[in-house]
Amino acid sequence: MKIVAVRVTPIAISDPPLLNASGVHEPYALRSIIEVETDNGLIGLSETYGDKPVLDALLRVKGRLIGHSPFDLNGLWRQVASSAGPSETGTHAIELDLAPGSQQNKAGHKTFGAFEVALLDLQARSLGIPVHELLGGAVRRQVPFSAYLFFKFASDVDPSYRPDTWGEALSADQIVAQARTMIDRYGFGSIKLKAGALAPEHEVECLKALKRAFPNHPLRIDPNANWSLDTAIRMAKHLQGDLDYYEDPTPGLEGMAELHKATGLPLATNMVVTNMEEFRRNVTLNGVQILLSDHHYWGGLRATQSLAVMCETFGLGLSMHSNSHLGISLMAMSHLAAAVPNLTYACDTHYPWQDDEVIKGGKIAIENGCVTLTDAPGLGVELDRDALAALHEQYLRCGITQRDDVAQMRTFRPDWTRKKPRY
Amino acid sequence: MKIVAVRVTPIAISDPPLLNASGVHEPYALRSIIEVETDNGLIGLSETYGDKPVLDALLRVKGRLIGHSPFDLNGLWRQVASSAGPSETGTHAIELDLAPGSQQNKAGHKTFGAFEVALLDLQARSLGIPVHELLGGAVRRQVPFSAYLFFKFASDVDPSYRPDTWGEALSADQIVAQARTMIDRYGFGSIKLKAGALAPEHEVECLKALKRAFPNHPLRIDPNANWSLDTAIRMAKHLQGDLDYYEDPTPGLEGMAELHKATGLPLATNMVVTNMEEFRRNVTLNGVQILLSDHHYWGGLRATQSLAVMCETFGLGLSMHSNSHLGISLMAMSHLAAAVPNLTYACDTHYPWQDDEVIKGGKIAIENGCVTLTDAPGLGVELDRDALAALHEQYLRCGITQRDDVAQMRTFRPDWTRKKPRY
Repeated sequence: MKIVAVRVTPIAISDPPLLNASGVHEPYALRSIIEVETDNGLIGLSETYGDKPVLDALLRVKGRLIGHSPFDLNGLWRQVASSAGPSETGTHAIELDLAPGSQQNKAGHKTFGAFEVALLDLQARSLGIPVHELLGGAVRRQVPFSAYLFFKFASDVDPSYRPDTWGEALSADQIVAQARTMIDRYGFGSIKLKAGALAPEHEVECLKALKRAFPNHPLRIDPNANWSLDTAIRMAKHLQGDLDYYEDPTPGLEGMAELHKATGLPLATNMVVTNMEEFRRNVTLNGVQILLSDHHYWGGLRATQSLAVMCETFGLGLSMHSNSHLGISLMAMSHLAAAVPNLTYACDTHYPWQDDEVIKGGKIAIENGCVTLTDAPGLGVELDRDALAALHEQYLRCGITQRDDVAQMRTFRPDWTRKKPRY
Repeated sequence: MKIVAVRVTPIAISDPPLLNASGVHEPYALRSIIEVETDNGLIGLSETYGDKPVLDALLRVKGRLIGHSPFDLNGLWRQVASSAGPSETGTHAIELDLAPGSQQNKAGHKTFGAFEVALLDLQARSLGIPVHELLGGAVRRQVPFSAYLFFKFASDVDPSYRPDTWGEALSADQIVAQARTMIDRYGFGSIKLKAGALAPEHEVECLKALKRAFPNHPLRIDPNANWSLDTAIRMAKHLQGDLDYYEDPTPGLEGMAELHKATGLPLATNMVVTNMEEFRRNVTLNGVQILLSDHHYWGGLRATQSLAVMCETFGLGLSMHSNSHLGISLMAMSHLAAAVPNLTYACDTHYPWQDDEVIKGGKIAIENGCVTLTDAPGLGVELDRDALAALHEQYLRCGITQRDDVAQMRTFRPDWTRKKPRY
């Protein structure tokens, strides 16, 4: 089985005006859809970031995979390493501290991981087995996700956003209503509140309102490192007892270590332990106790399995991080989560916020808070070529080539700054 | 593809009177040969320890695998865990500090690893690809091994040993002659001297004689923790500059850490970092800098790949340990070594000391010090059923059920003790 064609298609997907530590989501989020075709007619799929530096790296590698075996992951690494271009060493990344997917020092792992998923999909399809079986077998067929709540503008704040039924979510009542809608629709059994967007005291009050409304749902709050250490310690006093874990309240591994020492709260991260070097530093510092893995920047599914072994070894909990994404990423995350025994927390997903889809059959069902895995070969999804073409058209039309939540916020608040931590 | 039959056959293979820290090898070493058969007629092979506790554990698990998919490694873990019997918690293991394969606390990993190799062999065979490709692709097709020298009695010391042409090796001249024979026959490019058997000063003199005879061959010495810390530091002064690495001279991770601090020499181990808990302790203590992995007790090939990632992460070198073994183990080691980029040291192997073989075609060629990997499916070896039957007969006849180098030494030296460290 040899690779005969590789296609990388950038797409733009509608995104609502969700608030975060940097600003607000733009009307479109970017993704890349990867197809790898083999000489026996199989097509492996993958989905990853669509920002220009990632896209450029994917395009540089894709031609080099022709003739390769989909099993040759070490060969893929060699191609990724030898194709590294200026964007890997450049400094034009935006949101360096918010989205690990935008960090240039992860370029190799992002590029590798993007293709690796497609190759694993091919491996599994060639065997007629699901990816979760290829990865060692499902320890769970129902993969739980959490309700991912965001402070949010109403969609009519700017006609570029697609009208949505979620409406504004700035007050505690509105956040509780958002949670209720999400839980009613998808059955989520745990809740994560994206914070760092409004005043900390208000965000804590919203979390407490959620606690009152959903007393049996494990709760998480993620201020995306937008709280100073002092603020994070101060808020911890209010949150103590309410949290499943406290995610990235304050910047830096040292800051997190101070915070853990001061509060004893279990800290989670997708910001300060995002590669092996940081993992190693965390072993010394004990900054975080729960890792939010993400195969998109950790180097793919197999690398995340090794990361899981390391978490087991060093006594760290394991959960899963998400960016705005469609169904191919959701299924890669779900197959992986199914095969990792110590991934015991419900995973994050932005999926309910995305109306667009690029796979046949439309949106994947989330029921009882879970994605259910079947025995369909590979990732179990097929590309809808019409949808792909339409979303690629949308990409070309929207003009966005790199995520910039700060600039978008400036369209609403001209004096908005990139300051971090803001509070 | 479902498992329809599992066969576990204990065998005894002829072994020469090789000296080590505990005593001397018995005339026979024990191995278990594992065959896992699937409903599509494929047979996956594996080889592991043959000592009674391991054999008992293998026999307890084997029936539980019927109906399983060879891809379901997580399911294999469940079966291994739920079948754990008294031998896993017993204390009847001999050579606790010498051979990690005999340690009871590794029972689960040994049992899992034994079957895992057979399942990976099946996975690869079902795809028509070699195991090295299944593991991510060969980064090298020639896997280098080192010349593994032993102090040795002449084989006619006891008529139970099969006569051999190696003869006695107790003096420096004899050790150099043994090295020359081994290098002439197999082309090894590096040398390991098993020490801890005779007086340390004499063993160091033998290493220096090897250095003079083979000035360009990287050298290693392995006293199997039979030197006190003082002795190990004293010998280090003589060895400084001659060693590729200094393997397990002195007992315990703390002792190794002291030694490293005192000498600065790179220390290697297959004794003090043999599981994840010890790996974790070593990160704190920096006792050893090079890990000798062994898929037979680390939990198989995939687990060793994760271990390799951990070594990369924590800046440890990676090499490979060996026990007395035949060709199935040799090929599993070679396929694994081929697919692990950071396994940069020549691996250990006892293989030249074994005349028996259980695979078709007889002994596997080692040329230029390397095993050469082909594209033959799976591990690339087939069972010779006549040889298997003969070696199983030998197992039944020899009466050995558990390795005991101390008792064997007592047949020559009645006052021999188990004392460690001896020097």
